[in-house]
Amino acid sequence: MTYLEKLKSIQEKNSSWLCIGLDPSLERLRVDFRKWDEPILPYNRAIIDATADLVCAYKPNLGFYLQWGAAGVIALERTIAYIPQHIPVILDCKTGDIGHTQAAWATGLFDEWQVDAVTVNPFVGAEAVLPMIEDRPDKAVYILARTSNKSALHFQGELRQESGLSADVLRQSQSWSTAGHKGYVVGATYPEELAIARRLAPQANFLVPGIGAQGGSLVTAVRHGPDAVAGPVISASRSIIYASGGEDFAEAARNAALQLREKINQLRS
Amino acid sequence: MTYLEKLKSIQEKNSSWLCIGLDPSLERLRVDFRKWDEPILPYNRAIIDATADLVCAYKPNLGFYLQWGAAGVIALERTIAYIPQHIPVILDCKTGDIGHTQAAWATGLFDEWQVDAVTVNPFVGAEAVLPMIEDRPDKAVYILARTSNKSALHFQGELRQESGLSADVLRQSQSWSTAGHKGYVVGATYPEELAIARRLAPQANFLVPGIGAQGGSLVTAVRHGPDAVAGPVISASRSIIYASGGEDFAEAARNAALQLREKINQLRS
Repeated sequence: MTYLEKLKSIQEKNSSWLCIGLDPSLERLRVDFRKWDEPILPYNRAIIDATADLVCAYKPNLGFYLQWGAAGVIALERTIAYIPQHIPVILDCKTGDIGHTQAAWATGLFDEWQVDAVTVNPFVGAEAVLPMIEDRPDKAVYILARTSNKSALHFQGELRQESGLSADVLRQSQSWSTAGHKGYVVGATYPEELAIARRLAPQANFLVPGIGAQGGSLVTAVRHGPDAVAGPVISASRSIIYASGGEDFAEAARNAALQLREKINQLRS
Repeated sequence: MTYLEKLKSIQEKNSSWLCIGLDPSLERLRVDFRKWDEPILPYNRAIIDATADLVCAYKPNLGFYLQWGAAGVIALERTIAYIPQHIPVILDCKTGDIGHTQAAWATGLFDEWQVDAVTVNPFVGAEAVLPMIEDRPDKAVYILARTSNKSALHFQGELRQESGLSADVLRQSQSWSTAGHKGYVVGATYPEELAIARRLAPQANFLVPGIGAQGGSLVTAVRHGPDAVAGPVISASRSIIYASGGEDFAEAARNAALQLREKINQLRS
């Protein structure tokens, strides 16, 4: 099964374009959790149990686990293993090294951990992408095209005028020959740019962060997000997993996920 | 002590601008090592023991450890802890996430692991750098300016004409206000560009990969590498740590490091 087939299947089954970012922050966990030797895995499990019928993907971010060094990466490894097989796992790590190093990343993320997709930073060119999905038809990368942050404008150029780095990345990278799928990260915080990105890359799946705490435009994500095969992967993290700081955190996460899925589905119809 | 002071001190003590990249490849380890449950740490220890008086830094690359998942990251954590305190550790991870995620990376790498410097990918703008070294005077980042690989040219622009992404990164990032040091990664495989990078960023320390297996120009690295305070960090990995595939791997690594340090020092004088 290709990545897009897997994604499409869960999007239909769960009627959802919602992806939950599993980005643990110790200081936001409940006090009683913090006493545990390893609070991250049980917290993530509770979130996953409460939301697995509402999402089209989970997106753990490597940096939030590395903040505890190897102990955090063990929690990440176990979190990935806990996510039900039919739900795509997108590892957000923005990896972008040169050829032989990127092949090592691919071995770890795709072959060892068996995640379905990873985010990739294209600064070093095609070498960031080819060793990852040249020969992996069931995997995908999401190439950073326009990130959701304010300082994205420092180097990413005038995507509205279809010029600059973001536009170059979208144009050039589509010609790279890969067995796996090349999607793009396009932040919902740049709604006009998202529409242009869709025009420049009509076949690519979009991972759209910036909904939720960052305040991006859900309307644009829904209108310009879908490609010919599947819907976009609309990602929110803090607004869901820390919807409550209390004992009802899993229930609150479920309610927040339900509401966001519903908002998305209303805009779709 | 600032990062540059620490670097300068070891460069003088060991008469060396040589940095060894600790990038384990299981298939290149000796057969008897491969039978061990965890062969990476003892291999790295032997390399470090054999070369600690010849280097100005060690540079493990996160991707080569992540290829074994969390087990590899444990070996990385222990490798970092084993490196003598007076030798800077540069973690090559090319991290480049947005603000609050990058702060989590910084917690893990600088506060937990206490590495001295990390490589940073500037695609997302200043947010890749500020959360890391805004408030850490004893730490440094090496921002990717011109990477050593062939596909660097896809997006990094015409540095020779002082235009395009690499030139933009060098120019803009110097104005970002940080307590820690901002250095740059400039590949020795682009010798003319290295000279221009030095002109554009006269105060910055350079991390120069591409010597060794990649065949970059040592002459240019030595001529245009130094800044006002310290020498460049000239990095080689495979040509040293796999100089021999036999039982004499540590001795062979020492000899290869001796030769490369000597070559550099001859060019310096």
